[in-house]
Amino acid sequence: MNADFDALTARLAEHDDLRSAAALLRWDQATYMPEGGSAARGRQLATLEKLAHDRLTDPELARLVDRVTPAAEREGDGSFAARLVRVARRDIERAARVPAAFVSAFATHRAELYDRWVRARPANDFASVAPLLARTVEMSREYAGFFAPYAHVADPLIDLMDPDLKVTQLRALFDGLRAELVPLVDAITRAAPADASCLHQTFPEADQLAFASAMATRFGYDWSRGRQDRTAHPFMTKFSLGDVRITTRVRPNDLAQALFCTLHEAGHALYEQHIDRRYEATLLAEGTSSGVHESQSRLWENLVGRSLPFWKGQYPTLQAAFPAQLGGVPLDTFYRAINRVQRSLIRTDADEVTYGLHVIMRFDFELELLEGKLAAADLAEAWRERARTDLGVVPGTDADGCLQDVHWYDGFVGGAFQSYALGNLMGAQFFAAALRAHPSIPREIEAGHFDTLRTWLADNVYVHGRARTPDELMLSATGAPLSTAPFMDYLRTKYGALYGL
Amino acid sequence: MNADFDALTARLAEHDDLRSAAALLRWDQATYMPEGGSAARGRQLATLEKLAHDRLTDPELARLVDRVTPAAEREGDGSFAARLVRVARRDIERAARVPAAFVSAFATHRAELYDRWVRARPANDFASVAPLLARTVEMSREYAGFFAPYAHVADPLIDLMDPDLKVTQLRALFDGLRAELVPLVDAITRAAPADASCLHQTFPEADQLAFASAMATRFGYDWSRGRQDRTAHPFMTKFSLGDVRITTRVRPNDLAQALFCTLHEAGHALYEQHIDRRYEATLLAEGTSSGVHESQSRLWENLVGRSLPFWKGQYPTLQAAFPAQLGGVPLDTFYRAINRVQRSLIRTDADEVTYGLHVIMRFDFELELLEGKLAAADLAEAWRERARTDLGVVPGTDADGCLQDVHWYDGFVGGAFQSYALGNLMGAQFFAAALRAHPSIPREIEAGHFDTLRTWLADNVYVHGRARTPDELMLSATGAPLSTAPFMDYLRTKYGALYGL
Repeated sequence: MNADFDALTARLAEHDDLRSAAALLRWDQATYMPEGGSAARGRQLATLEKLAHDRLTDPELARLVDRVTPAAEREGDGSFAARLVRVARRDIERAARVPAAFVSAFATHRAELYDRWVRARPANDFASVAPLLARTVEMSREYAGFFAPYAHVADPLIDLMDPDLKVTQLRALFDGLRAELVPLVDAITRAAPADASCLHQTFPEADQLAFASAMATRFGYDWSRGRQDRTAHPFMTKFSLGDVRITTRVRPNDLAQALFCTLHEAGHALYEQHIDRRYEATLLAEGTSSGVHESQSRLWENLVGRSLPFWKGQYPTLQAAFPAQLGGVPLDTFYRAINRVQRSLIRTDADEVTYGLHVIMRFDFELELLEGKLAAADLAEAWRERARTDLGVVPGTDADGCLQDVHWYDGFVGGAFQSYALGNLMGAQFFAAALRAHPSIPREIEAGHFDTLRTWLADNVYVHGRARTPDELMLSATGAPLSTAPFMDYLRTKYGALYGL
Repeated sequence: MNADFDALTARLAEHDDLRSAAALLRWDQATYMPEGGSAARGRQLATLEKLAHDRLTDPELARLVDRVTPAAEREGDGSFAARLVRVARRDIERAARVPAAFVSAFATHRAELYDRWVRARPANDFASVAPLLARTVEMSREYAGFFAPYAHVADPLIDLMDPDLKVTQLRALFDGLRAELVPLVDAITRAAPADASCLHQTFPEADQLAFASAMATRFGYDWSRGRQDRTAHPFMTKFSLGDVRITTRVRPNDLAQALFCTLHEAGHALYEQHIDRRYEATLLAEGTSSGVHESQSRLWENLVGRSLPFWKGQYPTLQAAFPAQLGGVPLDTFYRAINRVQRSLIRTDADEVTYGLHVIMRFDFELELLEGKLAAADLAEAWRERARTDLGVVPGTDADGCLQDVHWYDGFVGGAFQSYALGNLMGAQFFAAALRAHPSIPREIEAGHFDTLRTWLADNVYVHGRARTPDELMLSATGAPLSTAPFMDYLRTKYGALYGL
């Protein structure tokens, strides 16, 4: 057993090394790479990804997994070995089902479409990408076909991001969520609008970054195992459990950008930094799903970072950092500004309340496209219609409509968006469970102490990495399966108070 | 032929991708990696290097080289195909001769010794590393043994860095050089010493970097295919011909550091940036040897960057950047300061004249250690004695003596130092040839124009990458084999004038 297990982890470490190297190449591409490096970088990434895929589908790896399975099962279902075997089997089988020719053909198609989209969005030219998008839909169906039989064609695509979840369950959750969000948004937008002008003065970039970093430090982000750099599109990435980096963007005339991007990415990073160190370089040293990952970024960004207790504690520090801009702005005005709800066009700028509606309409489009009920060519028109009914605003351009998100132009149609809405639901459910366990958390947040919350999350969520599935994690950490109730309770309480509903 | 040639270059590109990824991991390690990333980074680098080595020793690669050879030879000895076949055969045979077990054992030994040296140098504790250094000497001999027969045990080690060169030839060159340098240094140090105090005022770091970068730009460093970052030990690295980066260090109280480090690394980078783009991702897209590489860094740093014509042109700009510090310092004083010759202990701080003596003593020690004439344990004492006779100064500590350079503590003994002295010789020989072809070059340098020089170097040296061997390059570019004469002529003319000899 021991020799086989060592051989298995050595092979998985080599696979992890290739994936980590690819992640660093991508980080560099987004942060510091000069433009002349692009062509070779694409080829280098393709090579590393191909080699990582080869490692995962090497028959010897599957044989090693088989050989260690009986001993791993004897160690008990919750043991490191048993969990590793389960996840390895899943990843190996998944990788083996997709023919190398498809992987390569889709990579080529995806690069071409992405390149077109980069030019089509500013040119507001949906027609130029629609035929290629139709091909993406076909290829997404083809990909799903490798995992047949399935209840819904989107299920295998969703499974890539959010294991355990199926269309049936998501549709039920999202239909319920939408039914509650629409009247809440109606009620809020009938009330007097919040004034966010205090956020749109001029704030020196270095001071913004310094304040945001200080907040990430307070949350518990470990800078000896990470760093922050600037990118156009912020992200978190990891090269090992000892090197979990975040990026952010800064806008001189929008205080919310650097601040909330940093808190968001720090939330992702806290998750990865607290995974059990024993799992390093195995398949277990990662967040267990996109949805659970997003739950942590949104928990730290919104449930903590946009809460009244947090700002009761930190607003004086923020005012001290920007005395000319915020010295005369009362806490209540600032708090309303960072929580302003409004009907808007762009998902990434949307507030906590309307955000889910943006996501659900994308999720529904993915299903309709895959089911053949909606043609790619008709997406722009369908988008305008749905934005009108769900969001209450109609985009004047496709750039602000169906061209706004990169996802479908750089990957599969199907599975690309549900994690964002799941993150809100899961985050609220985890947070409510933490509050039940430690009712002192809001008072501690107000006092600038985050240890109790972070420790509860680390012990109940983070430490497990992929050793627990999202469903297992939700049950073990919150005692209940995923539901919309904690999130809707949270929204009603917070925004009821803010908008006097 | 075409299919085989394509298969060959595809395999070489994969090999190159792995090596380029490793280079990026090393760049990140030196620039931005947080301390927590160290352990995993070592493992990741070992994996990438092992996989690159596997690619090079794959029997199918050797078979492809054999298959394309007849057609490549029909294309002529100077053709891309013929040159690629020659270099590929050399690299493959070299890699195949070294058993994987040795590669791995030496990597482990080297990491252990390096780790000890990092602590031994500040502690001035040579005794703690001497036994491991003795083991390095043994392993260096063992490595040479894989390439037996050889005329001298150091020949295979030198061949790693400077193909074509053998101990016999180097000993003759260096003995001749030393015989000329010793009396020159004696004469200079009897003259009135130069005053370098103007370099040791306080210079804001950002302004230093801005000036140094502007000079690199003037030389022709292409920032769209490169960038500069700060590191403890400056270096040049390349991830593709479109991404050739340099690093530098800045010291507020030493104007020479950032400036000359930048010019030095820019020289290395100019070489790589001008290699024929057709060679991208083959084995040809690199400088042809360490010595030739060093010739370009030292040519741009010293023969251009420390020349009087250069500063006649640029000194007013430098004064304008630092008016308080240099406004009252005449050009002549500044020129003497940056060319001060003195007996000193540290190789990396040595001037152009004494530098060769530092290198030659290390080269001689390498031979004595490999020949068994000097025991590693006796190195510290031998170093003090040789420093006294050759440099005219005796290190008070081993930290300033035999512990000062990383090379022997992080690689083989043998072949580690000759390139530095070769660089001076080759650089002067290339520069003299360029001046013969274009006598206007000094006037152009004074006018701030470097195109004629750079273009000559690009056409005669850089463009060829590894398609020409160092010997071929020296002959084709300068019309003569390597000699010490151009370098000694240069030193005598320049320092004769400076010190009134």
